[in-house]
Amino acid sequence: MTSTPTLEAMRARDLADPLRAMRDAFDLPPGEIYLDGNSLGALPRATPDRMARAVREEWGKGLIRSWNDAGWIGAPARVGAKIARIIGASAHEVVVADSTSVNLYKLLTAAVIAQPGRRVILTEPGNFPTDLYIAQGVAATLADCEVRIVPRDEIAAAIDEQVAVVMLTHVHYQSGCKFDMAAVTRAAHTKGALMLWDLSHSAGAVPVDLGAARADLAVGCGYKYLNGGPGAPAYLYVAERHQETMQSPLSGWMGHAAPFDFTDEYAPGSGIRRFLCGTPSILAIAALEQGVDLFLSVDRDALFAKAQTLCSTFISLVEDRCSGLGLGIVTPADPAVRGSHVALRHDHAWPVMQALIDRGVIGDFRAPDVLRFGFTPLYTSHADVWLAVDTLSDILTTRSWDRDAYHVRAEVT
Amino acid sequence: MTSTPTLEAMRARDLADPLRAMRDAFDLPPGEIYLDGNSLGALPRATPDRMARAVREEWGKGLIRSWNDAGWIGAPARVGAKIARIIGASAHEVVVADSTSVNLYKLLTAAVIAQPGRRVILTEPGNFPTDLYIAQGVAATLADCEVRIVPRDEIAAAIDEQVAVVMLTHVHYQSGCKFDMAAVTRAAHTKGALMLWDLSHSAGAVPVDLGAARADLAVGCGYKYLNGGPGAPAYLYVAERHQETMQSPLSGWMGHAAPFDFTDEYAPGSGIRRFLCGTPSILAIAALEQGVDLFLSVDRDALFAKAQTLCSTFISLVEDRCSGLGLGIVTPADPAVRGSHVALRHDHAWPVMQALIDRGVIGDFRAPDVLRFGFTPLYTSHADVWLAVDTLSDILTTRSWDRDAYHVRAEVT
Repeated sequence: MTSTPTLEAMRARDLADPLRAMRDAFDLPPGEIYLDGNSLGALPRATPDRMARAVREEWGKGLIRSWNDAGWIGAPARVGAKIARIIGASAHEVVVADSTSVNLYKLLTAAVIAQPGRRVILTEPGNFPTDLYIAQGVAATLADCEVRIVPRDEIAAAIDEQVAVVMLTHVHYQSGCKFDMAAVTRAAHTKGALMLWDLSHSAGAVPVDLGAARADLAVGCGYKYLNGGPGAPAYLYVAERHQETMQSPLSGWMGHAAPFDFTDEYAPGSGIRRFLCGTPSILAIAALEQGVDLFLSVDRDALFAKAQTLCSTFISLVEDRCSGLGLGIVTPADPAVRGSHVALRHDHAWPVMQALIDRGVIGDFRAPDVLRFGFTPLYTSHADVWLAVDTLSDILTTRSWDRDAYHVRAEVT
Repeated sequence: MTSTPTLEAMRARDLADPLRAMRDAFDLPPGEIYLDGNSLGALPRATPDRMARAVREEWGKGLIRSWNDAGWIGAPARVGAKIARIIGASAHEVVVADSTSVNLYKLLTAAVIAQPGRRVILTEPGNFPTDLYIAQGVAATLADCEVRIVPRDEIAAAIDEQVAVVMLTHVHYQSGCKFDMAAVTRAAHTKGALMLWDLSHSAGAVPVDLGAARADLAVGCGYKYLNGGPGAPAYLYVAERHQETMQSPLSGWMGHAAPFDFTDEYAPGSGIRRFLCGTPSILAIAALEQGVDLFLSVDRDALFAKAQTLCSTFISLVEDRCSGLGLGIVTPADPAVRGSHVALRHDHAWPVMQALIDRGVIGDFRAPDVLRFGFTPLYTSHADVWLAVDTLSDILTTRSWDRDAYHVRAEVT
């Protein structure tokens, strides 16, 4: 039996971490341990200057000319191609656009319309709420379309010839459980259904290979592990083989074959571009690009391995130091089936998280009783993990809780 | 007959302009005359610092806490309420969200679904392309829905009991012609149809009073006269009387009655909030808010009067100084029926605009033969107008054009 690792051992590990220098690429608030990068990624140090340049030079001085001269018009495809490298897609299969929710609507609608006779969107209960809500919106709009919701262990059996598309979130936003992307995609294909993955809690956190899994469609968000800033633009993926046969219901001018011909008839552009809709926020994309660029320079195998080491260390420290203190570990112990955040259950999760935050350990709370801690391998250290558990253990040992004395505030995942 | 005004007379007029100080609120490139604020508004001087604060303080230091502590979660409603004051709406009838195209999709779909038995979207040919394209996307998605396109002088007669919604752009993006909002809205209501206005080329340029006109729905863009930055978020308006009966097809979590309850079933929020979809870009909204704020401190009657004086001066100078030089004036001479930009036709519009830009007069070109000049009363001066016409006259007098020698580049309206 091994003894509980010490803070010194963790610091030694950080010194030997080949990704150590990346932490300095972020502007982290001093004196805090930020374990909520799975909700809002931290600020890359280079982003303020990049934003200032986009505002003062590109917009202020270049004005309308910057659509061409500063590459604004190509930004959605350019940044999409960079994200493609993080999720195992080809450059021309990914584009930055709109929000995750809007992109889900585009792809779910396109998937149902593309498959006459198949009218079911299949998903699981407890999927990230906006995924379920958007699927319901698609079903309310398309004739005879229906959302079928079955528990994850019944998904494979529930795929039949009525299912147009299976929509799942690769890493669950709360539990951190990860689907076997290749296996589930294969199950969908066996029954002739398409497979759509939401990568919001995966991209930049765990290895993703959409191409190897032969995934059909995917969406993901820019403001979590990709560090694109609050409400950063999202992205969408359409496998090359579907790009000429599927069409976005949100047929805005940026997806037109010739947007500047100003014709009256919509004609979808070729390739992934047809899934663009309106004019994109250039300032928001500039921030996102800076965050994405940080992933392109690192050894991503080392990065994802570090994410799992951080999670494993956290779980084993919680087991060692918090046993008997009312915590349940929700997230699987096996790295192969989890993402890069860990959920703990506690009867008084809300005030426990408030106490952690008061002491500079920033995680988040998910109703009704979950504490969530995200490990972002670009900037989280092993010492962070140790100190977080140390603080958690101290709080649980020394504080008592009165359920009536606190109120739940809204926070954004 | 009056003589052509001199540059000195224009400068005297600028000195007497009660809005003169507003020009200093913008960071205009020295040595240039920017007449393309109808396409991309200029940079407000306060915006770079506001953006730096949003990036470094709110995101960098506040991190996830800023959703509450920095007011991020309320930003769409807060900035929407400010825009409401510019377009004659109540504070709770406007919200900032997504792009103009996405908002059009939401409201057109909601309007058709809300009126069983009425399945036609009525609009005019040559409307701004994305309006037509999105209407076509709605028709392709909803069962039995159809887009009917008739010339503007036949619109009123074409409204019948099949028409669910009439969708028009208040000020035409190219010609600058302005509809009589109250009269057209009345014609729609007489036949039981709803009226949707696209205010992209109106808001901040001409008086708009959605409430007095009893308009049902409206959308508009943030990056033109509102000076919100390239691809700024758009806004949408739903009259209070429709807010509880209409529902967005894009039922994302930000429009849910309780987004942070993380339930599986969509339940629309109350009021205008239900038309939100995904997580909004906070950085992009911060820039937009700074642009919108400039309108709240000025006398808007004086502002819109100045816009018309600038247009009238431009048109009369063009008539005086460019007659016989191949220009046709597309925009109406009557201020009551036009917006705040002027379109001129010329056989060689493309190289003429390139020559103007080379000499520091920035307007834009619209295929196939239109030169477009926008007059943004917050920062355009009468001297700008005089110098622009002087340069145009000089170019047309001294240059000859070879149609084969130039190529058209894409630009964003």
